[in-house]
Amino acid sequence: MAQTRILPAADNAYQYPLLIKRLLLSGPRYNPDQEIVYANRSKYTYTDLVERIHKLANALTDAGVKPGDTVAVMDWDTPRYLECFFAIPMIGAILHTVNVRLSPEQIVYTMNHAEDDVVLVHDDFMPIIEGVKDEIKTVKTWIQLTDSDGAKATSVDTYGEYEALLAKADNQFDFPDFDENSVATTFYTTGTTGNPKGVYFSHRQLVLHTLAMTGTIAHFDEMPLLRSSSVYMPVTPMFHVHAWGVPYAATMMGIKQVYPGRYEPELLVDLLKTHKVSFSHCVPTIMQMMMATESIKTADLSNWHVLIGGSALTKGLCDAAARLGIHMYTGYGMSETCPLLSATHMKPEDLELPLEQQTAIRVKTGIAVPLVDLDIVDPDGNPVAHDGEAKGEVVARAPWLTQSYFKQADKGEELWEGGWLHTGDVASMEPDNTLTIKDRIKDVIKTGGEWLSSLDLENLISQHPAVAGAAVVGVPDEKWGERPHALVTLKPGEQAGVEDIQSHLKQFVESGEINKWAIPEQIDFVEDIPKTSVGKINKKLIRDQLKD
Amino acid sequence: MAQTRILPAADNAYQYPLLIKRLLLSGPRYNPDQEIVYANRSKYTYTDLVERIHKLANALTDAGVKPGDTVAVMDWDTPRYLECFFAIPMIGAILHTVNVRLSPEQIVYTMNHAEDDVVLVHDDFMPIIEGVKDEIKTVKTWIQLTDSDGAKATSVDTYGEYEALLAKADNQFDFPDFDENSVATTFYTTGTTGNPKGVYFSHRQLVLHTLAMTGTIAHFDEMPLLRSSSVYMPVTPMFHVHAWGVPYAATMMGIKQVYPGRYEPELLVDLLKTHKVSFSHCVPTIMQMMMATESIKTADLSNWHVLIGGSALTKGLCDAAARLGIHMYTGYGMSETCPLLSATHMKPEDLELPLEQQTAIRVKTGIAVPLVDLDIVDPDGNPVAHDGEAKGEVVARAPWLTQSYFKQADKGEELWEGGWLHTGDVASMEPDNTLTIKDRIKDVIKTGGEWLSSLDLENLISQHPAVAGAAVVGVPDEKWGERPHALVTLKPGEQAGVEDIQSHLKQFVESGEINKWAIPEQIDFVEDIPKTSVGKINKKLIRDQLKD
Repeated sequence: MAQTRILPAADNAYQYPLLIKRLLLSGPRYNPDQEIVYANRSKYTYTDLVERIHKLANALTDAGVKPGDTVAVMDWDTPRYLECFFAIPMIGAILHTVNVRLSPEQIVYTMNHAEDDVVLVHDDFMPIIEGVKDEIKTVKTWIQLTDSDGAKATSVDTYGEYEALLAKADNQFDFPDFDENSVATTFYTTGTTGNPKGVYFSHRQLVLHTLAMTGTIAHFDEMPLLRSSSVYMPVTPMFHVHAWGVPYAATMMGIKQVYPGRYEPELLVDLLKTHKVSFSHCVPTIMQMMMATESIKTADLSNWHVLIGGSALTKGLCDAAARLGIHMYTGYGMSETCPLLSATHMKPEDLELPLEQQTAIRVKTGIAVPLVDLDIVDPDGNPVAHDGEAKGEVVARAPWLTQSYFKQADKGEELWEGGWLHTGDVASMEPDNTLTIKDRIKDVIKTGGEWLSSLDLENLISQHPAVAGAAVVGVPDEKWGERPHALVTLKPGEQAGVEDIQSHLKQFVESGEINKWAIPEQIDFVEDIPKTSVGKINKKLIRDQLKD
Repeated sequence: MAQTRILPAADNAYQYPLLIKRLLLSGPRYNPDQEIVYANRSKYTYTDLVERIHKLANALTDAGVKPGDTVAVMDWDTPRYLECFFAIPMIGAILHTVNVRLSPEQIVYTMNHAEDDVVLVHDDFMPIIEGVKDEIKTVKTWIQLTDSDGAKATSVDTYGEYEALLAKADNQFDFPDFDENSVATTFYTTGTTGNPKGVYFSHRQLVLHTLAMTGTIAHFDEMPLLRSSSVYMPVTPMFHVHAWGVPYAATMMGIKQVYPGRYEPELLVDLLKTHKVSFSHCVPTIMQMMMATESIKTADLSNWHVLIGGSALTKGLCDAAARLGIHMYTGYGMSETCPLLSATHMKPEDLELPLEQQTAIRVKTGIAVPLVDLDIVDPDGNPVAHDGEAKGEVVARAPWLTQSYFKQADKGEELWEGGWLHTGDVASMEPDNTLTIKDRIKDVIKTGGEWLSSLDLENLISQHPAVAGAAVVGVPDEKWGERPHALVTLKPGEQAGVEDIQSHLKQFVESGEINKWAIPEQIDFVEDIPKTSVGKINKKLIRDQLKD
């Protein structure tokens, strides 16, 4: 270690840890009267937000919550949830954002594994809890969240209803200082195998993620996420990686926020129109559902900027959105990374290009954001060329990555092999540092010593006019190691055979997009392609089925 | 201390300290070919910048620099200085930015006090060193900086010339990781009394200041400091609080930077025009000099955004600049605060106001930026009302404030009395959280139990058409504690007497801007008002002279 001159860490006056409570200083100061909207139900100001956070802290403390406790939330995307984002970690407790789309068994697993002490549950999710409450071991207190006039009847023994508890709580809470490395949030990632794994983030990590996100996204010439005039509405759920951390950034900057509750496409479009939303983050599926609504046709979307993540933004979706005037961007990250690692970076000259040429830039995974150290490496951990062709696994270092998996240190060590977080994604990097994700490393097809992207192949097959969807997996092959095997679904009333798909793919061999050996010999036409609970292609299941 | 759950600080893989080297990751990645310009002399790219930082690190190491050493720089504002901003702290050494405007005696004092090991000196400052070199005790190595074709002859025993050293240095340096609380920079503040005091900032502090500045300034609807298309040129010197930290922020975001060398008004305006500069920070005096040039009349300044600090931005200067199309803002901070504490915050609706009404907002000291906790307090440390009227001393907490004064712990304890940094500035705060600095606490006039701002009074006296300048100090008074005493200079050929000034001030009593008791009985007409070395009114000297 270099012998630098180090500031004395003794108990001098100048200790100012990076705590989530500090993110709450500036927003209400910039815009005390700025609005926070709950769908078409209610709205309040930043001044109210601060008061309600203080009341919530008192209500939770009255309910027995202590620093170090874990408080879980099962709610739609609401200002209540925003209050929990702040109040729970600001007490020194840990916010567990429960994935309400998991099966009841998985919810039980995550609550027991996280050792939840208190759970806030929306009426809509109460039936789940009613069915499994005897299996949940550590929870001492249930608090009810309701959008009705009064709390609905339930067999769960609840401590009280959120609004009623806030109404009688004191509006002054003295939020303590503590170590910035204290855990602030936790939630569970789902894979295709095994139990969900718990990631966790500290106050310091969330503050740094917020600062870096604020600087990054405001940097883009055309993207006004965090300017004074911005209006933010999340369209990826708050239980999933803190809605990508944007609620913290938006609150720090004092901009208008619109929480939609449930993700109903007509409601979302209605809120876009009513509040002139200028920034959202979204997954492709929901985006497509919104674009399929009748009401979007009469919306002025020329000031709507959408950061797409979760799955790849396709050229088709990006073009269709651009024709509606929407500004599309790709963000890249995952549960383990808090999540932001990289985002589309449009240079001023890029904005002068015709829309279709802009699309080619917008669908890439972008350039790593400030403070993130990121590279692509081969299986031995050696850097791979940044030539836009060579593929490697994306590895990252940054001040906001999960340090391990909760109570699964062995899996954490795998994640951090060699001191870099291994994303499990395979990508190429262009000479201008633009990253393009090609595949999951376990889905990439290793054939003849080369890495073949199953995603690339699926995209090309899907361009055949008769094809509705495609999935490609690698199957063992004596000569080549692995060979690609495709499952294809056809559009209703359409016809196509193996040779049609193969000859369709040959044009891409001629244009240089793929090599001749990328064309699968095995192509099965199927009714349905197996999907996971979150709607991704279940390649593990396909591989298992093909093995049998 | 709250019993939170704390991340293990043990030697796990996930240690990623906040080091200045991480600020250098993203800029060259966003824009490898982006330009860094040196006046009308030369330019290079971000790729070159990175290579030159590696070479400089090798050259300094070859010259004996080790982590923990102090390396001082005496240069104009140049890309060389930017290289030193990075390379010196990235080695683990401490960058001492020498105030070249100090007297030779004070320069000797600061170099000895900082215990400089190596000094980089521009030819223009070599005569100063030649005159005092025998009094400088700790410096082992002198490196010459030159803008000529070859190094100029000097009696100082130099180790080599900067460009020659870089030319032969290796272009790969393995910058180490170390504790983020390591000191990165130091420099000296000058007061009207006593020796200069050394402030110092750690890697962590500078990284956090950079992140917060990036988010803050990009937040303003009309101010494009840190968008991809921005062009930055500093017009406050790099030796003074790291040019307000903007070079770090600009480099992190990969934007074009123009370093002007010396502050010659014609040159500065020429560079503004040539490079379409969009953002600068500046003090009022230099701004006035630039606006007085002939060439500014033909410049299109409608995209030039200027953050004013150092002294108050007057309405007159702000209006004059606005008429030229310039967008003016006020920033607030000081050497002790890295410096950013607050800045003008223009809401979208503010930008719709007529220019003169915008001026009223732009000349205030703005709203505290994210993560900064800031208040105004009375002499007992109790908060003062935020009513726009009541005055109190500005106190602050933030993650980037100097922890003490180097080797003057007693003065550091005064600075941090009660756990807040005491700025020594008196201000009022409006209900919308806008801060307006009224005076230095030692210059405020305590009369009849009230605080009277000497600056307010000077501004009002200066509005008399015959008045060129004014200085007001408090003088002891048996009945009232203190009474204001004014020194006034008149414009050439103008005439005015004590009663003219007093009756001029009475109109402001009638309009409610000041109280009747604010009108000074004692008004002296003088040839010159005493100034300090940095051009501020020397109130201590005036008070001493009036005492005699």
